[in-house]
This record gives sequence, C-alpha cells and structure tokens, in this order.
Amino acid sequence: MQLKKKPITGMKDILPKEMEIRDYVLSVMKDTYKKFGFVSMETPCVEHLENLNSKSGGENEKLIFKILKRGEKLKLEEAKTEADLVDGGLRYDLTVPLCRYYANHQSELPSPFKALQTGNVWRADRPQRGRYRQFMQCDIDILGETSNIAEIELILATSTFLGKVGFKKFTIRINDRRILKAMAAYSGFEEKDYDTVFIILDKMDKIGIEGVASELEKEGFDEEAVKKYLTLFANISNDIKGIEFLKEKLEGFLPDDVSGGLIHIMNSVDKAKQSSFGLVFDPTLVRGMSYYTGPIFEITMDDFGGSVGGGGRYDEMIGKFTGQNVPACGFSIGFERIVMLMLEHDFSVPKGMGKRAYLVEKKVSDEKMQEVLMKAMAERAEGMEISLNIMKKNKKFQKEQLEAEGYTEIVEIFAD
Amino acid sequence: MQLKKKPITGMKDILPKEMEIRDYVLSVMKDTYKKFGFVSMETPCVEHLENLNSKSGGENEKLIFKILKRGEKLKLEEAKTEADLVDGGLRYDLTVPLCRYYANHQSELPSPFKALQTGNVWRADRPQRGRYRQFMQCDIDILGETSNIAEIELILATSTFLGKVGFKKFTIRINDRRILKAMAAYSGFEEKDYDTVFIILDKMDKIGIEGVASELEKEGFDEEAVKKYLTLFANISNDIKGIEFLKEKLEGFLPDDVSGGLIHIMNSVDKAKQSSFGLVFDPTLVRGMSYYTGPIFEITMDDFGGSVGGGGRYDEMIGKFTGQNVPACGFSIGFERIVMLMLEHDFSVPKGMGKRAYLVEKKVSDEKMQEVLMKAMAERAEGMEISLNIMKKNKKFQKEQLEAEGYTEIVEIFAD
Repeated sequence: MQLKKKPITGMKDILPKEMEIRDYVLSVMKDTYKKFGFVSMETPCVEHLENLNSKSGGENEKLIFKILKRGEKLKLEEAKTEADLVDGGLRYDLTVPLCRYYANHQSELPSPFKALQTGNVWRADRPQRGRYRQFMQCDIDILGETSNIAEIELILATSTFLGKVGFKKFTIRINDRRILKAMAAYSGFEEKDYDTVFIILDKMDKIGIEGVASELEKEGFDEEAVKKYLTLFANISNDIKGIEFLKEKLEGFLPDDVSGGLIHIMNSVDKAKQSSFGLVFDPTLVRGMSYYTGPIFEITMDDFGGSVGGGGRYDEMIGKFTGQNVPACGFSIGFERIVMLMLEHDFSVPKGMGKRAYLVEKKVSDEKMQEVLMKAMAERAEGMEISLNIMKKNKKFQKEQLEAEGYTEIVEIFAD
Repeated sequence: MQLKKKPITGMKDILPKEMEIRDYVLSVMKDTYKKFGFVSMETPCVEHLENLNSKSGGENEKLIFKILKRGEKLKLEEAKTEADLVDGGLRYDLTVPLCRYYANHQSELPSPFKALQTGNVWRADRPQRGRYRQFMQCDIDILGETSNIAEIELILATSTFLGKVGFKKFTIRINDRRILKAMAAYSGFEEKDYDTVFIILDKMDKIGIEGVASELEKEGFDEEAVKKYLTLFANISNDIKGIEFLKEKLEGFLPDDVSGGLIHIMNSVDKAKQSSFGLVFDPTLVRGMSYYTGPIFEITMDDFGGSVGGGGRYDEMIGKFTGQNVPACGFSIGFERIVMLMLEHDFSVPKGMGKRAYLVEKKVSDEKMQEVLMKAMAERAEGMEISLNIMKKNKKFQKEQLEAEGYTEIVEIFAD
C-alpha cells in the first residue's frame, strides 16, 4: 500500500538546511533570555476548548483545530452540533495557555514570574505562501510586575537576542493603549467606536493619513472629530518630545503616569541597549489584540517590511482565569519570519570546531574499520563534527553531497 | 468568567525546574548527535489519518487523537461513522512521519540520510503515574545504509549522549530479529506462531524461564519444541561466544552474515566507545514492533529498572510508502524517562558563568535605575545570568524565592 507523501494541507516538512537555522536561532534565543532571568515553561499543545474560546483569542478562535472525543464520550448518533463531538483543541497561541498555567501553579512559581515559552501553535488559516497552519511561537512574559522594569527588560532581552543572531538594523516602535484611547477621546470619538477607529488607524503605514481620513469618514464618524484626530497625529514627533507634546495636549484625557512611564522606558532602553537599533514613539501603533492595557511595542526590520515581533502589557487577562488581576507584560518574536529572512539571505550558522567526513571502502577489514571509528570518536570528543560513511560506487556524487552538507574536508580510507 | 485551570486530561504543565533539565538534556543531545553527522529534520505534528493507520504503528493506532474536519468538509448530518468526521490525527511516533518525509524529499536529501528528530507525540493511553498523553520522543535514524556501520554509529552516538548527561552505569542489550526467528524455526515452531512465541519470550526477565515454559505450554505449543527452545536459551552466554555458539547450532536456519554482523557491531562498539557501559548479547530481547528486520537493541540503566531507549533495523518499512525498500536503522531515546530519573535524583544542571540578582528599591531615581540596567546588561554580555527585580515589602520571602531559583548572590540597591 502506497501512502500519502505530502504533509497534511497547510503544514510543512522542514528540511535540514532550514532546521539548522531554526535550531541555531532557538538555542541563541534560549541562551540569551536565560541571561535575563527568564525560565522555561511548557503547556500541552492540546487545550480545553472552553479556554480557547474564552474571547481572549480574537479572530484566532475561529481557526481552532478541534479534537474528537474518544471512546464512550463520543456519542455520534446523539450529536447535534460540532460542540458535542469535541473536547479539546490545538492551542492557537501561547498566551491563553500561559494564563491557565499561571492560574494553576501560581503558588509554586516565583513572583514576578519571568516565563520563556517556545512551542508550536496551530491556526486553520487559509494556506498561503510563507504562512503555515503549524508554526513556532517564542514568547517571554513577566507576570506579577507592575513597574515599567518589565517593559524595559522585555525590550532589552528581545533586542539583545536579535543582535546576537546577526540582525543589526531594526526599529522598535512603542506606544501605549491609554494614549490611543486618550487621543480618540480628546478628538471626540465615543468609547464604543474606539476599536473601529483603531482598526482603521492601524492601516496608516499602508494607506497614509489621507487613506485613514477617508476610511474614517466612510464609517460615518463626525467630520470635526476626524479632522481633530488627524491634525493631532500630524503634529507628533517620533521621539520623547512627541510624548511630552501629547502629555500637554491630552491633559484631562490621559492618566498622569502614562507619559512619564513611556519616557522612562524609552530613556532606559536607549541607555542600556547593547545594539544600535532604533527606538521610536509611534502613536499610530495599535497591535491587534484588544487585551492590551498599557505600553505596546513592535519590531520591524529596516530593510524588510513587516513586523518580526511585538507585545505589550495585558494586566487584566489573567484575572479572567483566576478572578484576581495580575499585572502581565509580554514580548513575542516572529520566529518563522526571522528564520525565513535568514534563509532568503543565505545566512550561515556559525562554524563549530570543524567538520570532517570519512569515506571508508566497503571491503576494509573489521580491524581497520574499528581504527577509523576510534579516530572519529576521539575527534568528536574534541568537538569536531565527523561523518563516517561507506564509500559508494559513485564517489564523485557522494563527495558533492557531503560538501553541500559543509564537509569540505573528506578523507578516503582504502582496504590494505 | 473563570476558566478551567487544570491541563486537559492526561497531559501536563511543565514547571521551570523540570524544564531546566529538559532544555539541558535536549541541548546536549542535539549537540552530541550533530557531532556524529546527524542533521535535524521536522514533520508536522498533524499527520494524514491514512498514514497513521498504515499498520506500522501497532497498538498505537488505537490511541490516535483525531482532528475534526473544518468548514464545508464537515458534514455532520451525513456522517455515519467516526471516519466521516476526521481527516488528520496527532502523530503517535516519529517513525511513520519520517518514512513519509523520506518518501517526499528523498531527492533533496543526502544518502545515507542521518536524521535527528525531537518532538512531541500523542497517545490517548489510559493516564497513569509518570505516563502522559503528550510526550517527547527523540530519534536518530540512518536511512540508505545497508552496512552495519549504521548500527555501530547509532549505538555510539546514543551511549556518548548518555555519558555526557551524566549516566555512567548502563547496559546495551543487542539481538537480531533473524536470530529470534532462526531459534524458533530450529526448535520446531511454525512461522505463523512466531509473534505469539516472541511475546511470551519477551517476559523472560519478569517471569523467568519456567514462567516462559508454562505460558508456551498453555498456548498449546508442542512440548518438544518448547523444551528444545528453552534448552537452547539456557546454553547461550551473554557475549560474542553466545553468538558463535548459535551460529553453529542454527546452521541452515540462520543466514550466514547475521552472526558475523552482530559480532562486528559488538566488537566495534566495544573498541570505539568512550564511556564504560556494558554491551551484551541478549537472545531474549524481542522489541515490540514487528517492523524490525535485523539487529535490535535496548538500553537499561543498571540501577533502575526498565528501558530508557531502544531501536533496530527496519529495512522494509519505507517501501510501504515508496514502493521501493530503503535500508533503515534507528535508535530512540526514552527522553521522558531520562528526565524523570534526573528529577528524582536531584540532578542539577551544570552551572554557567554565575547568577546574580539585583533587588532595586522602588523609589530609586530613573537615573539610578538606568545605571543598574547598564551594569546588568554588561554582566549579561559577559555571560552571567542577571535577574533584575523591584524590591518588595516582604524582602525576606523575595530573597528566599530568588535563592530557590539559584540566585545565591543578591545585591540590594537603595535610593540615594
């Protein structure tokens, strides 16, 4: 019986060349984050459907891979709706499981809890180039810390990691959900309309300020409000001065500590950072998820479009699981995007202690083979990568394959 | 809305203490296997149900977590059986996906292909202590190599890894499926009964030779055959002499190259190994899966019962996917068991460059906080693990928590 060779729709097999980069990126990431005091944690890939459908997942809740009940629990004939058939689902992010985990284990965890999670998540999105239905997420979160040291450390850790894997030119944009709200309130929008306004604002980099204006008007918002809103944006500089400008302008709308906090974050990151990325205030930064409550941030590579990571503060989410709010702040790296960029730009993983391949003629004596094995084992113990192979008839092709794998030094061993 | 705090039935949240060991073991494993020329590869966690149900998975095929069809594909009202509702399943091992992967990508892969896979698998087993429905498997496989160098390298790589994570006293038992068959044939069992005979033989270490005798007789096997069979076992020594003895005894039943191959494997491993584990010939070793075709092996820790890994040659499995047989040989490590042993025996992960925690009084000036941040960043760059925290009211408890995390050096920073 011949079986299906292709992976299941929308998911991919990963070839060794890409895996080498993935392993390298993950290992540098874990190593870097641990230096910042983050500790690894893990939740099962399968999560209660009730938790996944808790309205914290936004659009992702429509994309859940659901798992069929088993044995006696599955009552196919009585089942009326999909919900009667399933009891679990594959997680679509690491944040919902993190909240459940924290609620479950809070008493066993240090406070603040600095969590490092790397793992696959699944979304039944329409398959498209470069986007798959299974992909890796890498999150760091600090739970239980009200002070801005959380934001500062998250940004420093993430930027240090990016620097270590070789990205030098990137920009971190920063904003605060409370600034977004205050700007909308100041301009005269009603609170019920904020989300609609922000979804349109989020397109600023694609459609420009005129595009935003016309979409806001199309939605039927008050012309005055739209004008006031966009004039405000036109006058804000992308630095601390911009924040100070808004502090004055939004008096009465913006809580007192917001601008100071944001300035402290920007100043501290600027002073302590060890790579030379840009850090800018961007009042148009929205971030999709409505669960954010404070500072939000996003990373973009200067030479390539699109975000490669982002995060923010979500102080009210864990309370949904525990009934008691816990301050929380996280930063998620776009692992798949970073790996794709490295693959496309022929990034090569730093060389180790050297690679050597042995090609041993098939008819060598057992004794001679054992000598080669002993030599290979000694060289491996010294840190070298040694590939031991039986020589093939088509030796030329075999050598080409080994060279493609990075074995530039090839030693041939013949029978006596 | 309060949500479910516990993980889904049979799966577990992993706490930082265990994760530290898991991360360490995985990192040493990958590092070691790469020195042997293995390259990482990955398949999706979700696999075609047809492939999972291809009869290569044995009993595991009954334990598949199945995934509900989505959108228009799900026709709940027309569905008559479970099979109408599902199209994918979570993989229960890494071997079936490896075969599909190889069939799909053979032309892009080197030959032989030395594959390293680590990843979760899922089995809807009855939950029990220490066994979970999601667990990590770590496999190395060599595809496309007929010679015994495959077995030798697999055993050397695995034993080197175990030595590196600190296991010194273990035993690798080795046998060959063809010896098992020849012994059964020599004794007079019929080929159709082999599997039944082997299942009983497999219990030798639990019920002893008398137990095996009585179970074989209970099955109604010929008394003469049972006697001949067990007399044979009683006379075999656990070393190369045992293999030589069988070579003579089983003449006409055992293919010529089998004993020589096994002796070559044992001699070579013994000569080249770099840790002092035991290597013994064990004619009672069966290994569960019927897909094995040649040498088989299993590791046990001398001080703790039970297997911590095993594998063997399965030359006929890939042919089921491609229609063309490819020689294949693999070794799988019992990752969860190894981690559990290390946890139970208070194994501590080797210390890095040092750990230091800063406790900073909340009311320090922004400038002073920035100084601390700069210091922390410099120390991290030097390789230290630095945890930066705001001092709490209950400083004593906070320090105890940090010490439990391994931060024995705690520096307090007060406002000027």
